[in-house]
Amino acid sequence: MRLGVLTGGGDCPGLNAAIRAVVRKAEVGYDDEVIGFQDGWRGVLEDTFIPLDVTRCRGILPRGGTILGTSRTNPFKVDDGVERVTATVERHGLDAIVAIGGEGTLGAASRLAALGLPIVAIPKTIDNDVGCTDVTIGFTTAVEVATEAIDRLHTTAESHDRVIVCEVMGRHVGWIALNAGLAAGAAVVLLPEEPFDVEAVCQHLTRRHTKGRYASIVVVAEGAKPRPGTLDLPPREVDQYDHERLGGIGQHVADEIEALSGFEARVTMLGHVLRGGTPSGFDRILATRFGIAAVEAAHDRDFGAMVALHGVEIDRVPLADAVLELKSVPRHLFHGVSKLFLD
Amino acid sequence: MRLGVLTGGGDCPGLNAAIRAVVRKAEVGYDDEVIGFQDGWRGVLEDTFIPLDVTRCRGILPRGGTILGTSRTNPFKVDDGVERVTATVERHGLDAIVAIGGEGTLGAASRLAALGLPIVAIPKTIDNDVGCTDVTIGFTTAVEVATEAIDRLHTTAESHDRVIVCEVMGRHVGWIALNAGLAAGAAVVLLPEEPFDVEAVCQHLTRRHTKGRYASIVVVAEGAKPRPGTLDLPPREVDQYDHERLGGIGQHVADEIEALSGFEARVTMLGHVLRGGTPSGFDRILATRFGIAAVEAAHDRDFGAMVALHGVEIDRVPLADAVLELKSVPRHLFHGVSKLFLD
Amino acid sequence: MRLGVLTGGGDCPGLNAAIRAVVRKAEVGYDDEVIGFQDGWRGVLEDTFIPLDVTRCRGILPRGGTILGTSRTNPFKVDDGVERVTATVERHGLDAIVAIGGEGTLGAASRLAALGLPIVAIPKTIDNDVGCTDVTIGFTTAVEVATEAIDRLHTTAESHDRVIVCEVMGRHVGWIALNAGLAAGAAVVLLPEEPFDVEAVCQHLTRRHTKGRYASIVVVAEGAKPRPGTLDLPPREVDQYDHERLGGIGQHVADEIEALSGFEARVTMLGHVLRGGTPSGFDRILATRFGIAAVEAAHDRDFGAMVALHGVEIDRVPLADAVLELKSVPRHLFHGVSKLFLD
Amino acid sequence: MRLGVLTGGGDCPGLNAAIRAVVRKAEVGYDDEVIGFQDGWRGVLEDTFIPLDVTRCRGILPRGGTILGTSRTNPFKVDDGVERVTATVERHGLDAIVAIGGEGTLGAASRLAALGLPIVAIPKTIDNDVGCTDVTIGFTTAVEVATEAIDRLHTTAESHDRVIVCEVMGRHVGWIALNAGLAAGAAVVLLPEEPFDVEAVCQHLTRRHTKGRYASIVVVAEGAKPRPGTLDLPPREVDQYDHERLGGIGQHVADEIEALSGFEARVTMLGHVLRGGTPSGFDRILATRFGIAAVEAAHDRDFGAMVALHGVEIDRVPLADAVLELKSVPRHLFHGVSKLFLD
Repeated sequence: MRLGVLTGGGDCPGLNAAIRAVVRKAEVGYDDEVIGFQDGWRGVLEDTFIPLDVTRCRGILPRGGTILGTSRTNPFKVDDGVERVTATVERHGLDAIVAIGGEGTLGAASRLAALGLPIVAIPKTIDNDVGCTDVTIGFTTAVEVATEAIDRLHTTAESHDRVIVCEVMGRHVGWIALNAGLAAGAAVVLLPEEPFDVEAVCQHLTRRHTKGRYASIVVVAEGAKPRPGTLDLPPREVDQYDHERLGGIGQHVADEIEALSGFEARVTMLGHVLRGGTPSGFDRILATRFGIAAVEAAHDRDFGAMVALHGVEIDRVPLADAVLELKSVPRHLFHGVSKLFLD
Repeated sequence: MRLGVLTGGGDCPGLNAAIRAVVRKAEVGYDDEVIGFQDGWRGVLEDTFIPLDVTRCRGILPRGGTILGTSRTNPFKVDDGVERVTATVERHGLDAIVAIGGEGTLGAASRLAALGLPIVAIPKTIDNDVGCTDVTIGFTTAVEVATEAIDRLHTTAESHDRVIVCEVMGRHVGWIALNAGLAAGAAVVLLPEEPFDVEAVCQHLTRRHTKGRYASIVVVAEGAKPRPGTLDLPPREVDQYDHERLGGIGQHVADEIEALSGFEARVTMLGHVLRGGTPSGFDRILATRFGIAAVEAAHDRDFGAMVALHGVEIDRVPLADAVLELKSVPRHLFHGVSKLFLD
Repeated sequence: MRLGVLTGGGDCPGLNAAIRAVVRKAEVGYDDEVIGFQDGWRGVLEDTFIPLDVTRCRGILPRGGTILGTSRTNPFKVDDGVERVTATVERHGLDAIVAIGGEGTLGAASRLAALGLPIVAIPKTIDNDVGCTDVTIGFTTAVEVATEAIDRLHTTAESHDRVIVCEVMGRHVGWIALNAGLAAGAAVVLLPEEPFDVEAVCQHLTRRHTKGRYASIVVVAEGAKPRPGTLDLPPREVDQYDHERLGGIGQHVADEIEALSGFEARVTMLGHVLRGGTPSGFDRILATRFGIAAVEAAHDRDFGAMVALHGVEIDRVPLADAVLELKSVPRHLFHGVSKLFLD
Repeated sequence: MRLGVLTGGGDCPGLNAAIRAVVRKAEVGYDDEVIGFQDGWRGVLEDTFIPLDVTRCRGILPRGGTILGTSRTNPFKVDDGVERVTATVERHGLDAIVAIGGEGTLGAASRLAALGLPIVAIPKTIDNDVGCTDVTIGFTTAVEVATEAIDRLHTTAESHDRVIVCEVMGRHVGWIALNAGLAAGAAVVLLPEEPFDVEAVCQHLTRRHTKGRYASIVVVAEGAKPRPGTLDLPPREVDQYDHERLGGIGQHVADEIEALSGFEARVTMLGHVLRGGTPSGFDRILATRFGIAAVEAAHDRDFGAMVALHGVEIDRVPLADAVLELKSVPRHLFHGVSKLFLD
């Protein structure tokens, strides 16, 4: 077979491990040839690529980022996109494309597969919002890095009797915030899935602090939104908090907590620290197994499939199902743990 | 309810997180009272315990070890053991005991439950050899720590064109060795599940090195055994390698590789580094969820149950099934990956 | 002797190691008694304290924060402050106070010593701005944590051809920014010591990127200031950037870079992550040696002295000299390295 | 100028940072040309080298190992070694060689410099045994890695009331053992500089444990030697412990402690984990500054000089003085701290 592989969307730890696994399984397991398209779907559209073999992939297993580069280019938002993708596939005589991406990249992959293009998919995103799989590549590393950072915030919060607000990635879903908050013992977690009321947050913090705990960590997903009318930050009176325009929700929450509760509040914004750097062992193994399974799916001509983790097994699911909607944190899960452990 | 909790067997990262979760769920969720028995089943036999509440558990979430201590004491190997356990349960009016342990501790728990004692179980062991659950508490942390250490070995192996043998824990099963070897890009992994032939290992290393890679990492589980007759280490001629008597299989393998292949070989023995220290975020969340679920099982009077991870869900399984036999690495899994990724 | 010990100012990694060393040297080395004042000078003013001995200090060596708490209370800004400090010293019959702090705490300590109070000082601050010592407790840990975070930013910057702006602590001096920038390979470092011109920064980034490097890390100390007139952020026209009022210099720099250069820019604000958590080995040893030396100075009745690191030796210097002015990054050091290594 | 650079002896973290600094200072600062000899002095003898420039050195700053490879080849132990070195220098028209190494590599460098070859030296070794400089490249990283590992051993020692023996590198000197032991709170440190008496160690441990501390960490440098007659390990009766022949001093110490004191003892051997992997921020900065200073020394034609850290300054010292004898841990330093902090 001749295979193409690409990485699209936001980068995350484990992409290189997945690329390496695709190449090794293809070359050693099947004697296939592999090319890597550069910068996601853009590389397919523009036919920019590099040949990949086992030697080229040596040493990349523990490296963050992606040797192929990435972009958010979407073939369906480009003139003649589908035709150009098809032309590239034919020009190279590709039997399959392994698309490694999150909801954007895989959404395009799904539509291309529906049009008959030979695509298999590997889910990756630190946000963990792709459906039909227990987790995506990169998510576990992001949680570990956030947990380690929040651990460090605890001692300084305690030394100064302070509230520290830690903003983490998660524009649309709160998986990182919830998991890191749970793992690191946060007092409050604010998620995009559930608009928050900063007064209720302050009441909760005050309750904690009157019980003798003077330090609290508040984890805020970057996409968390105040309930209309509850976050009053002059001169920015907002009915509906506009994330894109205002940014820095963590800073706003800290300011408001300080104003309303009287507790000193400080803010930390972990930002891209969560998506770079070496992957955890968990993500390296997951990426490796996903890469193997994707090549097997290609050889089974199981196009339109996405590889997925279910328990300890790697399965295949219909890609179309996986990208149907964002996988968000279910309300019962959030409420179940938050009553007990986020205080 | 009145609950007792204990931690038994080898310690591992995440025990304190599990204790904390049991206490918080019991106290905050149900208004239960909790006591913690000291040093595993020994504390129940000797009725040594400390009262536990939310305040006592503050700050322990990220701490390795166990605030309750641990031991390998088995009530069935002690005179009147069962009677003494029963007496303690009655003396305190306990409605349930939450036993956190590996195969030894849970084996005893299972037999006690069969005798009618109100026991629910939480599986923990860095070795990951308890059945009926995707993973046990502590395993993921051990893999992460081993992966990070092996990452460091790579650069020094490469700088000196050397073989470095890294011995990791795993007396009976090779889950840590296999996973850390995969995650960190080892050339060879030797497991207890499959006796190894050191000549075959040397041939493999020679093949690699003639292809231009001069550095190799060999991960050896401490319980890995040579195929009879294949590891000839004068003056210790062994038909069957006797782990208990000889110890240090890593050193033997390194010596033999150096003698047979001529490659310089060095050894590292990670030992207890893998079982101490702060748990990974993954293990903290797992331990927290297991602790919650165990208290719920107690309230459902689902005695004889063990909580278990299946995918993203926490389930209950019969404890008797879980301890029936050690969960070892299946041959197909080992062979499947080793052909592609352990070279 | 009877000794008092306190920690004041912002907390930092290594304070507990210093407290432990003071206590062990005093108790084991001299059979002294030690009390710990709570929350810096406030504890002396209000006579709130806890007795300290070797047992109480067990396990605190690797812990961040301070078991004594801290505050910025200054006896000279409180009514009858000096009298109250004197009264507490007399009430307890203290032979010496060991003051562990940065410029604020030690400034007060210096004035109190000048008035005849028996004070010896230990310099700590992540900012490294205390004079007459090679480094202060906490600084090295902060640099290590920042370096590790910036390492993670590199791969994501490279995958996306982006500029990532990383704001680190340092309101008045740029030691952390310069050292972390050097250690982690930043393209640009902006310090409080030298007002910056964002257009020059953009020109430099453009030059780099035209040479084929598409990713750049810009490290910004929180107190870095634009040269008047150079950072034009509507609607916030500032002649002189007002850090206290505007905050978030990192975000402003990122916005401006994106606007002027056209490169995508993202921001990360490490904040208090740099001052919390476990100290590096270096800081634990430094804090331990400082603690020993401070007790020796007390026994030599060398009041008004500060312990200091000079090369591999621990010396004593006049505290008054050490707090005379902030130790800032010398212009020649910054310019010398920045031409070669910050690109 | 035309410069050659080489790395010799055992590898350590920071070598690549030093190479990068040499190349950048030479190319950007002076418009020099640089070649890198492969595998230490062997590359000079055999004239195997690669051209080095800023582009080639991109990305290596955080990488462990050395892109040039290393060896222990000594020109003075090879036929016509000096002539061959001279011939290579002349063939390339080299104005200077920057030799990065420890006592072996720099010993040869010193003799070659005495013969008139244009050599400047940079000290590196995790062992920190080169004289005339506060520290060498690699030492600080090794201490940090060992400290982190020993931190993990504490919790497991405490959970099981055990003695854990941790063997660290250091064949001739105990700098790593002493520093990591201090930083991580070991109960005992055994160094090559002072033969130990295992009975005295056991008495000390017993004293500790009767005072209620049941867990102890014993750090042993690999070159630590028992006092003659004190370590009686049948069937290995040794008058003088023979490190080369017996190896594994950590295991012997653990066995003996268990036999003599009755405490359970376990062993961990960190081995090459200490010398591989990413350098600490401290070592990256030190290596960078050393690299700059070495090129400056070459341009000053200050041959026979070694760059050195003295406090916060980089100085030059006569290489001949630096390699005169191994820098070992002074007795007073060891005894001073060990009475207070290693228990």
